[in-house]
Amino acid sequence: MPKVSQRGDEMTQSPIRSLIPYARRAKEEGVQVYHLNIGQPDIETPAAAIASLNDYDHTVIEYGASEGATDLREVVRDYYCDNVSQIDLSDIYVTTGASEAISFTLFSCFDSGEEVIIPEPFYANYIGFSHTSGVRLVPVTSSIDTGFSLPSPKAFEQQLTDKTKAIFLCNPGNPTGNLYSANELREIAKIVKKHDLFLIVDEVYREFCYDDQFQSVLDLKGLEDHVVVIDSISKVFSACGSRIGFVVSRNKSVMNNILKYAQLRLCPPMIGQHVAQACFLDRSSYLKEVKAEYNRRRLYLYERLSKMEGVKSYLPKAAFYIMTELPIDDATAFCTWLLSDFRMNGQTIMMAPGDGFYLNQEHGKRQVRIAFVLGIRELTKAMDIFEQALKEYQAVVANQTQQSYSYR
Amino acid sequence: MPKVSQRGDEMTQSPIRSLIPYARRAKEEGVQVYHLNIGQPDIETPAAAIASLNDYDHTVIEYGASEGATDLREVVRDYYCDNVSQIDLSDIYVTTGASEAISFTLFSCFDSGEEVIIPEPFYANYIGFSHTSGVRLVPVTSSIDTGFSLPSPKAFEQQLTDKTKAIFLCNPGNPTGNLYSANELREIAKIVKKHDLFLIVDEVYREFCYDDQFQSVLDLKGLEDHVVVIDSISKVFSACGSRIGFVVSRNKSVMNNILKYAQLRLCPPMIGQHVAQACFLDRSSYLKEVKAEYNRRRLYLYERLSKMEGVKSYLPKAAFYIMTELPIDDATAFCTWLLSDFRMNGQTIMMAPGDGFYLNQEHGKRQVRIAFVLGIRELTKAMDIFEQALKEYQAVVANQTQQSYSYR
Repeated sequence: MPKVSQRGDEMTQSPIRSLIPYARRAKEEGVQVYHLNIGQPDIETPAAAIASLNDYDHTVIEYGASEGATDLREVVRDYYCDNVSQIDLSDIYVTTGASEAISFTLFSCFDSGEEVIIPEPFYANYIGFSHTSGVRLVPVTSSIDTGFSLPSPKAFEQQLTDKTKAIFLCNPGNPTGNLYSANELREIAKIVKKHDLFLIVDEVYREFCYDDQFQSVLDLKGLEDHVVVIDSISKVFSACGSRIGFVVSRNKSVMNNILKYAQLRLCPPMIGQHVAQACFLDRSSYLKEVKAEYNRRRLYLYERLSKMEGVKSYLPKAAFYIMTELPIDDATAFCTWLLSDFRMNGQTIMMAPGDGFYLNQEHGKRQVRIAFVLGIRELTKAMDIFEQALKEYQAVVANQTQQSYSYR
Repeated sequence: MPKVSQRGDEMTQSPIRSLIPYARRAKEEGVQVYHLNIGQPDIETPAAAIASLNDYDHTVIEYGASEGATDLREVVRDYYCDNVSQIDLSDIYVTTGASEAISFTLFSCFDSGEEVIIPEPFYANYIGFSHTSGVRLVPVTSSIDTGFSLPSPKAFEQQLTDKTKAIFLCNPGNPTGNLYSANELREIAKIVKKHDLFLIVDEVYREFCYDDQFQSVLDLKGLEDHVVVIDSISKVFSACGSRIGFVVSRNKSVMNNILKYAQLRLCPPMIGQHVAQACFLDRSSYLKEVKAEYNRRRLYLYERLSKMEGVKSYLPKAAFYIMTELPIDDATAFCTWLLSDFRMNGQTIMMAPGDGFYLNQEHGKRQVRIAFVLGIRELTKAMDIFEQALKEYQAVVANQTQQSYSYR
């Protein structure tokens, strides 16, 4: 039998997905599982966007432009011009989700073996994209004690080598829910300019900032040739399955390279683009309501976590995630146990173990990411389960430790 | 300004797309351009598939399974079981177009620097996919004199090195319109087994075989662990813009690796999958009619080309392409001239220069690919233009040559 590739064998599975078999088994046993583990919002996609499918009046579902449909790009351009400074049509290409935007950006900006400095914890799939493109992720660890605020400029500069090509940020942050301030970003901008780096920022959660205003790196002066922004309708419009993302940059050479990769895959999904356009056209009241809903959940979740003994947390400023540190040694074992052993009224919860969001995995070993993608009613039940399970798990572990002592 | 990647700079543009600026300019001048250059059928997508958008009853456009929606995979499995031998659900994953299926297959089966033997001319974008994945394409040239039939087994074996990992075929062939016979494929199968290679076959034109029956490599006995098939709804159901393709293989290690790349991009487009399912459900009369229509065009086109002086051609057996060799020195110059200079009643044609389909480009220098993606009425006009243009162009070239002689 011919052998598959080593690089394929080496690709790691997403930590968010590695617990899926346990969840499946629990469900097969009739257990109800509350999913706090994934970034799949329960919020409805704008009704007008789904209704727009009824108006899809093409008789042939044809290929479109590789850079994306002009109609959609114009609407996105207007959105950017309303929310950040001047963006031209040629600065925006449509991609098949933010995933493809990240992939195209890495291939277009980096040669294999080059490095990108990135704060951890970060969105776990960045590891896969860096593997596929041969780009080396160089982490700068942020701490739960500061609510995962941006590490110091010095911490970034210490990681610079002659192979460093860029700094990569996720702002607002997945998995942290952090929001970097204008001041923090200006400090990063100085490094970027001084060392002539790209500044790549995943801004897909841009619409969910609860206390402070969002600062897009597109608005930082003098960085026109450095900045590449990753965006998507997935989270903002709760339309993950449409697979519509964007890459935005004023750097013509970057966009020129990206276009070549875009041409290779012919075009982004055409019906998804049709839906995306409808999302942007009628957005203001929708976005306001959605943000208010996430904010309610955020405050509730923080309140519950704050009251749990030994659980370290913080009030996330943005997005719909929170990282918490638990009074246990191994969060993966705990998350697995939740699915395989723990039941409360025939229910349990699924969370994402923290270590998958780090390259220095020991930093995340006691952490879990909770996504508040369930309504308050379900979140309440999920938190009741979490609180009870944590107590029982600690007792189980204490008991096991005692037993293992008594065997000595 | 930070430098973009060398690999991005080195990515070549699709030859099919390089003439686009000339076509755009012609259109801006009010010239009507008949597009014989692209594989975008004019045939309507099944009406039931487009109508199925009205039944899209989800309130949230959610992420789906990375391997594709089970509903769709079941329908595709049934299609395969009806048309080729037994295929299990686990042998089929949905991809974002055949493009992604090719990309995933290359990453999953090959490490960078490994080689694949491929008959040329081939689908030009294979060059881009091989570049992105670092896989080396090793061409075996087929000839228009045999209607681009499969090169001899010996020709393949001569290209074997210790880095050869696979043989890659496109059957039915783009850009040739060839169809490989069961006997030809069995000869390839012997090499594949003897040298323990993968056999990767792009079968996206499988439904358009006009004289002989289609032989899928999935039906070749004893190749279960060797065969990977690339498929798509784009051409068969004239739904290129849906971006729904498939990868089919009984090799569990291959599928396991592909799944990891699939998980990285989360899921294929969900609305496209909804449409795809409707395509398969109500297909038999649709496919029959579409095939009959392409067949009429094929016979007409062949008849016209046969009567043109100095034009070498053949009757394509499958797909909707024909390669022709013209009595000129530079087909790219001719195709450019058609767009920039030639007008007949305010109309002209666009064709794909042949050299872009070869790695040994000199073999294609006098060839063009014609896609019969227009109805007979338009094809008639396009062929009238072609015939007249070819005469005029030869006169222009002769005149230029004479002038250049007189300057000496």
